[in-house]
Amino acid sequence: MDVAILAIGDEVVQGKTINTNASYLAKTLESINMRVIKHMACLDDRSSIIDSLGVLYQSANVVITIGGLGPTIDDLSKEAVAEFFDKSLVIYPQVVDKIHSYFTRQGLSMPESNMKQAYFIEGSKILNNSNGTAPGMIYESGGKIVVVLPGPPKELIPMFEKEALPYLKSIRKTFHVSQKFRLMNIGESHVDELLSTFYDKYSCLKIAPYASVGQIDYIISTNNKDDENLFNEACLEFQKVLEKFIIGDWTQLINEKIVHELIERGLSIATAESLTGGMMASMIVDVPGSSAIFNEGFITYSNESKSRQLTIDPSIIQEKGAVSEEVARAMAEGVASVTGARIGLSTTGIAGPGGATPSKPVGLVYMGISMDGYTKVYRYIFGGDREKVRRRTCMTLLYHLYKDFLQYKR
Amino acid sequence: MDVAILAIGDEVVQGKTINTNASYLAKTLESINMRVIKHMACLDDRSSIIDSLGVLYQSANVVITIGGLGPTIDDLSKEAVAEFFDKSLVIYPQVVDKIHSYFTRQGLSMPESNMKQAYFIEGSKILNNSNGTAPGMIYESGGKIVVVLPGPPKELIPMFEKEALPYLKSIRKTFHVSQKFRLMNIGESHVDELLSTFYDKYSCLKIAPYASVGQIDYIISTNNKDDENLFNEACLEFQKVLEKFIIGDWTQLINEKIVHELIERGLSIATAESLTGGMMASMIVDVPGSSAIFNEGFITYSNESKSRQLTIDPSIIQEKGAVSEEVARAMAEGVASVTGARIGLSTTGIAGPGGATPSKPVGLVYMGISMDGYTKVYRYIFGGDREKVRRRTCMTLLYHLYKDFLQYKR
Repeated sequence: MDVAILAIGDEVVQGKTINTNASYLAKTLESINMRVIKHMACLDDRSSIIDSLGVLYQSANVVITIGGLGPTIDDLSKEAVAEFFDKSLVIYPQVVDKIHSYFTRQGLSMPESNMKQAYFIEGSKILNNSNGTAPGMIYESGGKIVVVLPGPPKELIPMFEKEALPYLKSIRKTFHVSQKFRLMNIGESHVDELLSTFYDKYSCLKIAPYASVGQIDYIISTNNKDDENLFNEACLEFQKVLEKFIIGDWTQLINEKIVHELIERGLSIATAESLTGGMMASMIVDVPGSSAIFNEGFITYSNESKSRQLTIDPSIIQEKGAVSEEVARAMAEGVASVTGARIGLSTTGIAGPGGATPSKPVGLVYMGISMDGYTKVYRYIFGGDREKVRRRTCMTLLYHLYKDFLQYKR
Repeated sequence: MDVAILAIGDEVVQGKTINTNASYLAKTLESINMRVIKHMACLDDRSSIIDSLGVLYQSANVVITIGGLGPTIDDLSKEAVAEFFDKSLVIYPQVVDKIHSYFTRQGLSMPESNMKQAYFIEGSKILNNSNGTAPGMIYESGGKIVVVLPGPPKELIPMFEKEALPYLKSIRKTFHVSQKFRLMNIGESHVDELLSTFYDKYSCLKIAPYASVGQIDYIISTNNKDDENLFNEACLEFQKVLEKFIIGDWTQLINEKIVHELIERGLSIATAESLTGGMMASMIVDVPGSSAIFNEGFITYSNESKSRQLTIDPSIIQEKGAVSEEVARAMAEGVASVTGARIGLSTTGIAGPGGATPSKPVGLVYMGISMDGYTKVYRYIFGGDREKVRRRTCMTLLYHLYKDFLQYKR
């Protein structure tokens, strides 16, 4: 079943909003083996929307529209979809009640304009909106299915996952199994090398990577019942070959995984950052509840502050340089000792564009982890610009903390 | 002149890449008054590309394609565009030389497959690629213009700005003037209130906002020569009414502006962060050269660390609470005094979802700035989730530092 995505709205077409919804939907649909074949974005204009639907249904059975469900006269998605299917919109009284109570809960009265959000094509299925007043809608006619979703990601994502996805799975009918893996500290080409025989052996399965900075998500899937055993075998083999790099499925990011584990095990953590300048601590603090395990951190950018804050012997810095294994080690141990935390993390390196020397190129990074007195230092040379070197450092350090200290007991 | 954008590539359609290029191009084109009316993304498939071009030229004169210029057989953009225009591709010898020397400079020999990147439609204009081997192309036939660009933003953006934009401006022919403003610490609805009479008075001009977290970009423009005086008047009035919120044009972000100014004036800065947990320092360190003015920072998440690191009297925290004007003040003054920096910044607040009390709601934030012994504390209640509250805090604090301490002398 082929799917197309239509973002509706001047703000998307004119570049005021980045269309992150389209990639979210495409990735999620691919993971249930529905193939996305086209995206479009059109203006808030009735005939533009209708034309776009016409174009997309030429090659897709399912069109998912995004946006245009607000209470203003510019919000035309349901009206245009109804016109495309030659239907009219009718009021759904139970939705009126819901919108009313949405406002009442906040001590407000419902503006008249929001009544618009209670109208849908007759016979359509309503999709609840747990974070806003605009419900979505699914309508099917003559083999064409339309899924109408709101624009804000925090409304669209829960609606899609809770309300639309179960419906799409149910109509997909075909057999489908899939397994998701999140990998870190490995590049796509290195995965390809490790899987060179794997791809041939399991060529009938679908194996798709989704790479971002410091992380690659993989999904293995098939919709052929005859390949189910092969699929199971492939998942086991994938897991075995890449075990070192797998940190779980797609449900948690590495910082969430780590903070949850630290909270559960009552392990406190502290940070000493040079290169990353606070980004590492910020990723920890980004997880709700982190205050239970994170009390403090240091950003020691200058040599003098490294010595003073982290009680590092200045002669080590002078002899080895601030970007060195020895300093990364002393920083990690120093921050654990100064703060009394069970775990100390450190980063030091050359983010560029300046600061390189013949023996210390841009991208050279040392990171330290000290836990209960045992310390390991990791050395990497990362490519990319300043922002990427810093972000990759944080991701890699968290990966090592998880794999070498938290997941595998020494 | 109406423009459409076509992203070509499985990775975009399947959600492996977020199409940030489309919003970049749309925003940039709007700023020279070329109207973008549609985006599409299609698979790496010759007939898909040709069909999409057909659809887009029904309503646009100019189509900009993104991606599909690599050396592999999946890269089909130029081939499909040529077929659409019923032309063939010919080799451009000068481009062969350039690709050769691109490899030679890196001590490599050119792979045979890269020869593909030296073929273009006969009579087309070549667009140099300063960051890769794939040149772009502009071709015009029968009133239809196609601009073919590579996919990676770091190749696309300089190519578009240096090579394609001057061409598009030259064919636009119509008169056009525009002025750009970057505003901070104000919401779009508040701008609308302040401009209520402005919009009526200058209704013949185009006034477009582009909002992101903590920042709104505005552009005022016209392509009517008769409105030039009105345009100049409008820019002056906009500047006067919104002066308090304008931090410049679109060329620099607030952290870049501040770091450059601090370097120029030789002012050192230090950070003490609770709520923002290192994000503030990370934004400073993100700017190349920042080590000249930033030596160190503290992330003092616990009360105990606030007292110990920043020498705050614990009784202040006990009496007023960690989220209070007094503690923000003591943190900013403390970090300046402990580090000897001329400027100390502090943040404390309730990011949520937990931690609120009846008198201290989620989103309550205090931030302090202390410069040469003079201190100001700012209190805000921000909406949005944890990430947004933290980010908005950093942006607002930098805004105040710029406006209240650096731009206006006391």
